Amino acid sequence: MSLLVLKFGGTSVADLDRIRNVAAHVKREVDAGHACAVVVSAMAGQTNQLVTWVEEAWGFKARREAGNEPSALYDCREYDAVVSSGEQVTSGLLALVLQSMDVNARSWQGWQIPVRTDAAHQKARITGVEVGELKASMQGGEVAVCAGFQGIAPSNRIATLGRGGSDTSAVALAAALQADRCDIYTDVDGVYTTDPRVVAKAHRLDRISYEEMLEMASQGAKVLQTRSVELAMQWGVPVLVRSSFDAPDMLGNADTGEGIGTLVCHEDEIVEQNVVSGIAYARDEAKVTLLKVADKPGVAARVFGPLAYAHINVDMIVQNVSEDGRSTDLTFTVQSADLDRAIEVLGSAKDKIGYLDLRGATDIAKVSAIGVGMRSHAGVAAQMFSALAEKGINIEAISTSEIKISVLIDAAYAELAVRTLHTLFGLDGG
Amino acid sequence: MSLLVLKFGGTSVADLDRIRNVAAHVKREVDAGHACAVVVSAMAGQTNQLVTWVEEAWGFKARREAGNEPSALYDCREYDAVVSSGEQVTSGLLALVLQSMDVNARSWQGWQIPVRTDAAHQKARITGVEVGELKASMQGGEVAVCAGFQGIAPSNRIATLGRGGSDTSAVALAAALQADRCDIYTDVDGVYTTDPRVVAKAHRLDRISYEEMLEMASQGAKVLQTRSVELAMQWGVPVLVRSSFDAPDMLGNADTGEGIGTLVCHEDEIVEQNVVSGIAYARDEAKVTLLKVADKPGVAARVFGPLAYAHINVDMIVQNVSEDGRSTDLTFTVQSADLDRAIEVLGSAKDKIGYLDLRGATDIAKVSAIGVGMRSHAGVAAQMFSALAEKGINIEAISTSEIKISVLIDAAYAELAVRTLHTLFGLDGG
Repeated sequence: MSLLVLKFGGTSVADLDRIRNVAAHVKREVDAGHACAVVVSAMAGQTNQLVTWVEEAWGFKARREAGNEPSALYDCREYDAVVSSGEQVTSGLLALVLQSMDVNARSWQGWQIPVRTDAAHQKARITGVEVGELKASMQGGEVAVCAGFQGIAPSNRIATLGRGGSDTSAVALAAALQADRCDIYTDVDGVYTTDPRVVAKAHRLDRISYEEMLEMASQGAKVLQTRSVELAMQWGVPVLVRSSFDAPDMLGNADTGEGIGTLVCHEDEIVEQNVVSGIAYARDEAKVTLLKVADKPGVAARVFGPLAYAHINVDMIVQNVSEDGRSTDLTFTVQSADLDRAIEVLGSAKDKIGYLDLRGATDIAKVSAIGVGMRSHAGVAAQMFSALAEKGINIEAISTSEIKISVLIDAAYAELAVRTLHTLFGLDGG
Repeated sequence: MSLLVLKFGGTSVADLDRIRNVAAHVKREVDAGHACAVVVSAMAGQTNQLVTWVEEAWGFKARREAGNEPSALYDCREYDAVVSSGEQVTSGLLALVLQSMDVNARSWQGWQIPVRTDAAHQKARITGVEVGELKASMQGGEVAVCAGFQGIAPSNRIATLGRGGSDTSAVALAAALQADRCDIYTDVDGVYTTDPRVVAKAHRLDRISYEEMLEMASQGAKVLQTRSVELAMQWGVPVLVRSSFDAPDMLGNADTGEGIGTLVCHEDEIVEQNVVSGIAYARDEAKVTLLKVADKPGVAARVFGPLAYAHINVDMIVQNVSEDGRSTDLTFTVQSADLDRAIEVLGSAKDKIGYLDLRGATDIAKVSAIGVGMRSHAGVAAQMFSALAEKGINIEAISTSEIKISVLIDAAYAELAVRTLHTLFGLDGG
């Protein structure tokens, strides 16, 4: 008997038929003797409806018509109160469906468990999960159906973790429960060498290390939320990525689930390892360029401090010294969704920072090769750059880590670059 | 400066435009210097959607198709978790709209205030409202936007008060806050002598006593929920019933709101009083008849005990001794919504009670004349019975109180009976 955490995303619980399918997956594990906690997202479409209402309430449309570009400066605490209701509904409905199938179950809201978060509403981080009461319920034979994506802030108000946060909820819960495995059910059946919509020869990986998955996720593979992989690595929670569209009676390896999905685990649990495990790409990044920034000490702090304060994550950073030697051009990338706010923040800090002009662009893509094998294998970057050059693809910026090489390129060449690198690193073979 | 509680029902917050209208009403009171707590229902239609999902989750349709009449025996705690999300959404949205109008505001869920209830999920009663934190927020200048209809049960799970419970939330909050007045905004502009859709000459009452309103509400006037009037009477909270469809700049008497609605208050605050203040009718009752119940001591307890245990309210009770003298026929009324459950409860207790047959019917109506003036005025009942007899309306049961006479009649005659009594007691004049 194991303790499992099962997580189902929005498309997996999109309507009552899909929720019944989820319940069948849960019942299979319960019938196999496992103690189960289930984490659910909102029914697909619900979150968008709720966000639209929030924006209407804050007068986005009226502000736009009045010529004021709407900022996101509404009260995030109210956003959280409204939007978290989506998961509340799903958790109650799944508990009822399970009960109708004679499976003991009850719903748990974030504040009931409680899942504690910090005060960064709308993008909160989990600071702790107190599972005492929940564990007692599970030991009494109840499936714990938990609303994902939410917790409770120190102010006793609901906080959401941001889009995709249900993955993080599931892994944090699995860590707190010392679960044997966290199964993330999604609309794909695992982690692929790259996006199969771009490269037909992409194939599913049986296993991938946390480190690689982390790079895949943060580079835009979109299968698992970054924070959830970080947590899984930190606490050593094995995570199985599998599809909720598979028939509930389709079984993989009893211990690891292999054969039906991808197991995300420690590197030393993976026997055969390619130099490069996967190619990731992201189109949801935007480029910000500050022209002629005064080249004096502390300028980076004056630029990136206000962005951090506004909870805007900065990814790649490139700095060029300009001709006059007294100023530099500073380019960095942020999430596209944060671009307007980044421009606003930097615009209002113009005098403090000191720069000539500020530009934003979204027609860029980031393409990355990822693999723990790079650590022991030299020349991967050189191979990559020359393959891209051969196709006439210009590299605007480069960033690397021990197990990853990323390049920023014109968005129009994203697919070509991904296909080129997938072939280059021997991933077409399957 | 006063402390006001304003309550807005589902049709008053049906969409963002209507919520903006509600915010205008609130802003008017804030601008006049009043401290305001606002209680909101779910957006019209949302609660029905959520209830439909609950019923689908519990497999109502499949059970019906399998020939099993669906019972309401799903887990009420999950119903509450799902359905309470409706008010959660509205409270957050109204807080945002108020903020967008530069009115300080924040949302409060039932469990945040907290509003404490008993454990009777789906029909919970408020046992206490702890307003310390909420009051501090209001004293800091924030409008408290409270989710109505919900509280928290001793188990730390959300409990709903049943349909219409937001009125009760508002009055309980007003009592706890020692508010100067509780304004119930609804889709009608006050309490009428009877339903204007039935009697064109019906007119709005400026004032009505708690006792009369209680009878009007429980007799089906549907303007205010019974429990809310009981609470208002108990705590001496003046309640103003007015329309949310009135223009927000339409003002009544500054202290009492008179001229734009009906003030529900103590009897001694009403100067001119008719013998009968209003005629109420109810179609949502059902009749249950137990045939040939053994006429022995304790039978009433054996019949009504299990019903009370199942939280089914019984209204009128009539008992006839049958021909043989050893058994009686017992007839009583329940809410139509409870009929199936009442039949089920009594069916399974058949051996314990001892009766020949059990019948249920919903084609009945209850018509009532209500007025505190009856206390000092004899002959009202006799007048009423003869007026109905003149129209050929058969009376199936009668119940009376100090200030009310109710008759149970064939549903087909309901409107005729109401019109007849409205004229009889001089209410047509206006």
